[in-house]
Amino acid sequence: MTSFVGEMLSVIAERGRNLVTWPGTDKNDRSVGALSHALLSEKGEASSIAIASELFESYGKLDEKQKLAYFLVLAEEFCADVNQVQKTAETFLNDPCDKNSFALHVSTEPRRQELFRRLNHAPDGTRQLVHMRHDLLKHIAKHPTLKNVDGDFHHLFISWFNRGFLVLQRINWATPATILEKIIEYEAVHEIDSWDELRRRIQPSDRRCYAFFHPALTDDPLIFVEVALTEEISRSMAPVLSKERVLLEKPKINTAVFYSISNCQAGLRGVSFGSFLIKQVVEELAGELPQIKTFVTLSPIPGFLSWLAQRTDDEGETPFKLSTGDQKIITDIKLGYWPDRAEDRAQMKEILLPLAADYLINAKRPHGKPVDPVARFHLGNGARLENLNWAGDHTTKGLAQSAGMMVNYLYEPGEIEKNHQIYENDEQIVASATVTRLLKNLPALQGTKL
Amino acid sequence: MTSFVGEMLSVIAERGRNLVTWPGTDKNDRSVGALSHALLSEKGEASSIAIASELFESYGKLDEKQKLAYFLVLAEEFCADVNQVQKTAETFLNDPCDKNSFALHVSTEPRRQELFRRLNHAPDGTRQLVHMRHDLLKHIAKHPTLKNVDGDFHHLFISWFNRGFLVLQRINWATPATILEKIIEYEAVHEIDSWDELRRRIQPSDRRCYAFFHPALTDDPLIFVEVALTEEISRSMAPVLSKERVLLEKPKINTAVFYSISNCQAGLRGVSFGSFLIKQVVEELAGELPQIKTFVTLSPIPGFLSWLAQRTDDEGETPFKLSTGDQKIITDIKLGYWPDRAEDRAQMKEILLPLAADYLINAKRPHGKPVDPVARFHLGNGARLENLNWAGDHTTKGLAQSAGMMVNYLYEPGEIEKNHQIYENDEQIVASATVTRLLKNLPALQGTKL
Amino acid sequence: MTSFVGEMLSVIAERGRNLVTWPGTDKNDRSVGALSHALLSEKGEASSIAIASELFESYGKLDEKQKLAYFLVLAEEFCADVNQVQKTAETFLNDPCDKNSFALHVSTEPRRQELFRRLNHAPDGTRQLVHMRHDLLKHIAKHPTLKNVDGDFHHLFISWFNRGFLVLQRINWATPATILEKIIEYEAVHEIDSWDELRRRIQPSDRRCYAFFHPALTDDPLIFVEVALTEEISRSMAPVLSKERVLLEKPKINTAVFYSISNCQAGLRGVSFGSFLIKQVVEELAGELPQIKTFVTLSPIPGFLSWLAQRTDDEGETPFKLSTGDQKIITDIKLGYWPDRAEDRAQMKEILLPLAADYLINAKRPHGKPVDPVARFHLGNGARLENLNWAGDHTTKGLAQSAGMMVNYLYEPGEIEKNHQIYENDEQIVASATVTRLLKNLPALQGTKL
Amino acid sequence: MTSFVGEMLSVIAERGRNLVTWPGTDKNDRSVGALSHALLSEKGEASSIAIASELFESYGKLDEKQKLAYFLVLAEEFCADVNQVQKTAETFLNDPCDKNSFALHVSTEPRRQELFRRLNHAPDGTRQLVHMRHDLLKHIAKHPTLKNVDGDFHHLFISWFNRGFLVLQRINWATPATILEKIIEYEAVHEIDSWDELRRRIQPSDRRCYAFFHPALTDDPLIFVEVALTEEISRSMAPVLSKERVLLEKPKINTAVFYSISNCQAGLRGVSFGSFLIKQVVEELAGELPQIKTFVTLSPIPGFLSWLAQRTDDEGETPFKLSTGDQKIITDIKLGYWPDRAEDRAQMKEILLPLAADYLINAKRPHGKPVDPVARFHLGNGARLENLNWAGDHTTKGLAQSAGMMVNYLYEPGEIEKNHQIYENDEQIVASATVTRLLKNLPALQGTKL
Repeated sequence: MTSFVGEMLSVIAERGRNLVTWPGTDKNDRSVGALSHALLSEKGEASSIAIASELFESYGKLDEKQKLAYFLVLAEEFCADVNQVQKTAETFLNDPCDKNSFALHVSTEPRRQELFRRLNHAPDGTRQLVHMRHDLLKHIAKHPTLKNVDGDFHHLFISWFNRGFLVLQRINWATPATILEKIIEYEAVHEIDSWDELRRRIQPSDRRCYAFFHPALTDDPLIFVEVALTEEISRSMAPVLSKERVLLEKPKINTAVFYSISNCQAGLRGVSFGSFLIKQVVEELAGELPQIKTFVTLSPIPGFLSWLAQRTDDEGETPFKLSTGDQKIITDIKLGYWPDRAEDRAQMKEILLPLAADYLINAKRPHGKPVDPVARFHLGNGARLENLNWAGDHTTKGLAQSAGMMVNYLYEPGEIEKNHQIYENDEQIVASATVTRLLKNLPALQGTKL
Repeated sequence: MTSFVGEMLSVIAERGRNLVTWPGTDKNDRSVGALSHALLSEKGEASSIAIASELFESYGKLDEKQKLAYFLVLAEEFCADVNQVQKTAETFLNDPCDKNSFALHVSTEPRRQELFRRLNHAPDGTRQLVHMRHDLLKHIAKHPTLKNVDGDFHHLFISWFNRGFLVLQRINWATPATILEKIIEYEAVHEIDSWDELRRRIQPSDRRCYAFFHPALTDDPLIFVEVALTEEISRSMAPVLSKERVLLEKPKINTAVFYSISNCQAGLRGVSFGSFLIKQVVEELAGELPQIKTFVTLSPIPGFLSWLAQRTDDEGETPFKLSTGDQKIITDIKLGYWPDRAEDRAQMKEILLPLAADYLINAKRPHGKPVDPVARFHLGNGARLENLNWAGDHTTKGLAQSAGMMVNYLYEPGEIEKNHQIYENDEQIVASATVTRLLKNLPALQGTKL
Repeated sequence: MTSFVGEMLSVIAERGRNLVTWPGTDKNDRSVGALSHALLSEKGEASSIAIASELFESYGKLDEKQKLAYFLVLAEEFCADVNQVQKTAETFLNDPCDKNSFALHVSTEPRRQELFRRLNHAPDGTRQLVHMRHDLLKHIAKHPTLKNVDGDFHHLFISWFNRGFLVLQRINWATPATILEKIIEYEAVHEIDSWDELRRRIQPSDRRCYAFFHPALTDDPLIFVEVALTEEISRSMAPVLSKERVLLEKPKINTAVFYSISNCQAGLRGVSFGSFLIKQVVEELAGELPQIKTFVTLSPIPGFLSWLAQRTDDEGETPFKLSTGDQKIITDIKLGYWPDRAEDRAQMKEILLPLAADYLINAKRPHGKPVDPVARFHLGNGARLENLNWAGDHTTKGLAQSAGMMVNYLYEPGEIEKNHQIYENDEQIVASATVTRLLKNLPALQGTKL
Repeated sequence: MTSFVGEMLSVIAERGRNLVTWPGTDKNDRSVGALSHALLSEKGEASSIAIASELFESYGKLDEKQKLAYFLVLAEEFCADVNQVQKTAETFLNDPCDKNSFALHVSTEPRRQELFRRLNHAPDGTRQLVHMRHDLLKHIAKHPTLKNVDGDFHHLFISWFNRGFLVLQRINWATPATILEKIIEYEAVHEIDSWDELRRRIQPSDRRCYAFFHPALTDDPLIFVEVALTEEISRSMAPVLSKERVLLEKPKINTAVFYSISNCQAGLRGVSFGSFLIKQVVEELAGELPQIKTFVTLSPIPGFLSWLAQRTDDEGETPFKLSTGDQKIITDIKLGYWPDRAEDRAQMKEILLPLAADYLINAKRPHGKPVDPVARFHLGNGARLENLNWAGDHTTKGLAQSAGMMVNYLYEPGEIEKNHQIYENDEQIVASATVTRLLKNLPALQGTKL
């Protein structure tokens, strides 16, 4: 995909601005609020590209406080028409037919949605709307009325970023640098600290990287995944990222290890691409290298130590009573100090592996889904909890999150749908015997599981 | 834009189907109805691409009757949940806040919309949905409940085919034949009867053709416009399409005549691109050939003779009393017989030009907009009624519609917005003095205008 | 391949011309001859693009007579320097070492070669040089001194159109119309009389067309081949080109029939691409459809009836004495009249098939190669004479050339090299037993073979 | 330009190898020598792609010594046929006509040329031939007979890399990383030490980089130039490369400074692209930014201090008698130590600027061309020696070469051709008055110019 479209559109907008004369009365009020109203007027219909472009330009010059003010204007002045809604709601309640229901649907659509659709007429409008929502999200916690504005963004983005419009592209060393630098920037799991490190991850023939793109955001990936092609399931990161590793020749490859998945657009929160990406990459690889029989992740356990801390700190429901010495070692690990003494390390392994299995299998949120976000993602996609790996990631981050442990989630093409249904309907975690067996060692811990 | 994406997606879908095992119980019911329900279930979430593909495949094998049956299923079984809507409607009426309004908006969304969004996951899904709506539209007149289904299509397409996602492409002799044959097929105003005729319209340097494309329908234009670059406003079609015409050299060009605009996708009815297309082409041409000062159409008057027939036939409100002889000549013209006698032709010109001016300026529909669809389109875009041309199009079609008369609508970049506002707010027709003056001759006609 | 390069270069040339000021003295002599000398001067080194462009422009305005005059100037004024050659020749003869041989090679290079290399600096220069040679070839027969000029063209083109620089492209219905119209124009074997006929040959999934392109002639194919994918060896053209034929589904395909090969550039005479094209298309097809086991041509026998006429007309060495009746029938066939009577047709088949076999196998040119040009081409490529087909092509052309007979030449990948060696070294024709057996019926003819 | 062609060709070659059966007798001798002979035989004609590919593969495994052995084989066994040359030479001397001259030209062509042309049939053959010549060049000094082999490479490359086949591409941040890393690698004038440094040179809107590519070497630039767009002629490198510099806005730009030109392919020595590159970039920039009126280089003076050392060291022809103190300071500068004392620096400037002017204007090689290679290049292209800049480049390299001085060569479009002719015919250096005036200070130096 080229940036052809992007270039063309921006050229046109620049010209467009010269052609469109701004109309009389409002000429002086070019605030984003006034422009928003103008964009929804008849004037806006005839000159949407120019007005939308100007609005984005003005918006770009606002500071955070002004942006917040604008969002509050959007929340207050661009809702649905309450009187109209009342009327159609009453009509529906008198005659609850499908037609009246749809009329109600139409009348409840906030005017913001049409505003956003017209803003999208501007060159590069989609990207700017995604960024605008990113700005908005920062204020939501303190200003709950903005949730309605966010709901409109989310509704539109769900529709616009439909999987049918996404394009999978392989990222490799022939990819334009503009995109590669975004891969470096967006990598959220295992940091890429240089162009050489990037090259090691995407250039060798036993490494892959794939991203989804949207035609309206040609230079900006939405999500990407990094894959190592191996001859056995990788259980720790160090060999995967090692500078000294030897290239694996094509005939020996039999496994694909998805070791990093990163969302790129904060403004697309809640619009999920990950499941589609993994499945499509599985299909790509299965097509290209039919000898690959195992598709598996090598994933972090980001919430484990926080959860454990709560479990041991909280007096009310202390489930695990760890000795003060063990707690001390765990605290040190969390701070990045790996035990020097072999016996401490062995002790830790004996304690932490079963606890991690317990965390992944039994720690649930209110609706019955796992507490761990990565587990939630992969198990929700239909993967199976396959291995729990001691000493998988001894970087500062890995130690702080999970005492260095990692997980393999297995994507078995023939099982994905069944696993997904079990996960959704039965709220059960599909796990391998190896992991389940670890739970047996839980009672041996000095504590009582709730 | 290449068909790269399209190819990729279809390859993947084919493979995908092999990877997804169909689940137990429903295995045998692969009707489009059952597949639609499956697509909205959890199973559908995990395997949407495969199910959607299968649904389209099955749909493609249905006959018209079966398709109608499927649409009726969509109308009945995929509405919003009435109980849920009732609950949220009552909540809103009790507390008519924006939040409750949005909750109502969500609950009133018909399940069809999610169904269509998931169908869009299939390779080439967007095109197939557009075709499906085309099929649907044929049944709407007889089955009014299908209007709700159509409303859902329309709502989605408005969002998906947002102008921000469209790409303008020049169509010329270097365009792939796959697309060129669609230009031949879709041309709706002045038929293209051969590849040679097509070449005469797009290859010479004083002829242009531009089309809008959507990234998900790469091989299929949405709308296109044909333009002649001239040194004066063209007032009849014959010289524009003449095989013998001489190429106009670049320095002499000062006018762009839009002589044909055709929508290509019947399934996108009500999603309008024309106004954007004309404006963007104006900008393209203004950028490339700054010497062009006049942007004008050469347009048919499709509704004139029908309107006139009503005016004269209808006894109740006969506004124009034409002599039997004149009526006879007009009827002959409508059937394609041009008067042999010069005096008849002069007489016709004297009678019909003022009537046509009256038709274009004064014949209105209930909401105050012109009866003539082409006038409605261009005047609504902010153009001005510039010239009324006698003997503009003497093809069978031209004679039958408007006794061979044609119109020029003028797009004056600096006036477009103002004209649009006058049109929308004041329900007035912006016309040149030349055309308005014709109205003075109306009273001279043997009749009484209402 | 896009026309990107072409466009860029021509834009640049136009600009270039403005930047380069033409030098003082020769300012007024802008004849092609003067420009040619200028291009070889120091001035030419610094401004080659502008001078070369101007030369081509002037050349384009010459009539045939003027072009001939220019070629004669090239033949006389742009040779190697005779004195210099004499000197280096003597040096070599005194000391015939490799170094002196190379010095001789350098000094004998005609100045035309450097002229042509500099002409190639002009935008689209390569294409124009190819056209210039085309013009030249028309005059060679009458002006043998032009052979030297032609030799220089040929030498350069052999180098420039090296197979390593050619790009194979599939031609199909998604190919730009600019290229497709050239396919229609250049088809030399079985005429394409309309765009619909073209579409029938390139769009169906059991039809293929491939062409070689050179990067400097992006819009112009050099040579192309049309292929029918079948389930048995085609023995006549009618079913291949039939409008009513049924598409052959992919699994049934087992044979590729090359039924037409056309050179496109008359100016590249003597630079052969055909052998490479066939072999690469064999590889393409073998890679894409491994089920294809048979690669075969369906070819005309262009020289048969002319040869036969000589054999029977020439009293001196009359080899075949055909009855006057038979000769009459043959003459009628040649004029396009197919015998009405079944017995005549049977008689003709009995007489002509053995004669055609004799023609193909035994009719040789001085150096031992076949008289028939198509036979020479395919047998020289390493193909085998496989079948001789009665009633293969009953078009006017087919009857006139070979009484409607056609041939299959078989390309057996494992045999190509061996066949080529037999053909080159042993001057033997590799033919199937079926064809060889036909020779046995020769003595039965009323005549004596020489 | 994409790597489309490259990919296609290599796929095909791989397949090709399986299709071609290696012939009987030589089966075991697959040495590069034997393969070279095979490639020139009939077998080679029929299977050139496969044999050429194998030869390159074998060649790639040779060590330096074996490569030398192969080159010597090429020098001895693949010459022209001496007997044949003798015969044609004698024929020519007897009748020295153009035809016999051309026959002599043909017979003197070394068989290596046909060998190289056939090697070029291999996928990626052109690139490999360029690399092969690079290998060859290393051995030429010690093995003069290899000069003949090199002559053949040179002759072919002059023809193949004709300017008409080259494509100018802008290099920017959207360029594939594969190409960008080559820019880093090949930059020969001012080293690029990181991707960030590269980005600073190619991404900002007031910086440009252009390269020539050949269609057969798509991923590999041949030569590139780096340009700074400025508002005055840059006279030292530091501000040009400064990390802190402020972007110059488009309307202020009026000058283009070519500050680095690097040849990329050692194997293309003697095939010059630089002059064409500069002229085309001048045209590109003049077209895009017509406000640019000054095109100038900022160039090193690589040979100055070496020349000066010779001039002062050599007792025999000591032209400049510098004091021991001054000589000491110069030696220190050459070693990278810049004088601390202001008076020393002033003294140096007074001494060295005139000497540098003398070096550039008067120091000539036997044929009257400047000793300095950079001067030779730009002056030969028709540029004018415009400024001599004190303290232009204080990097280690800059100090060592020229005591930190730099030069501006001015490319005045209207003067280029005239300057070129003066340079070629009159062996005069076209220099500005500013530089010429410096020569007046020469006699003041303690020494006597020869």
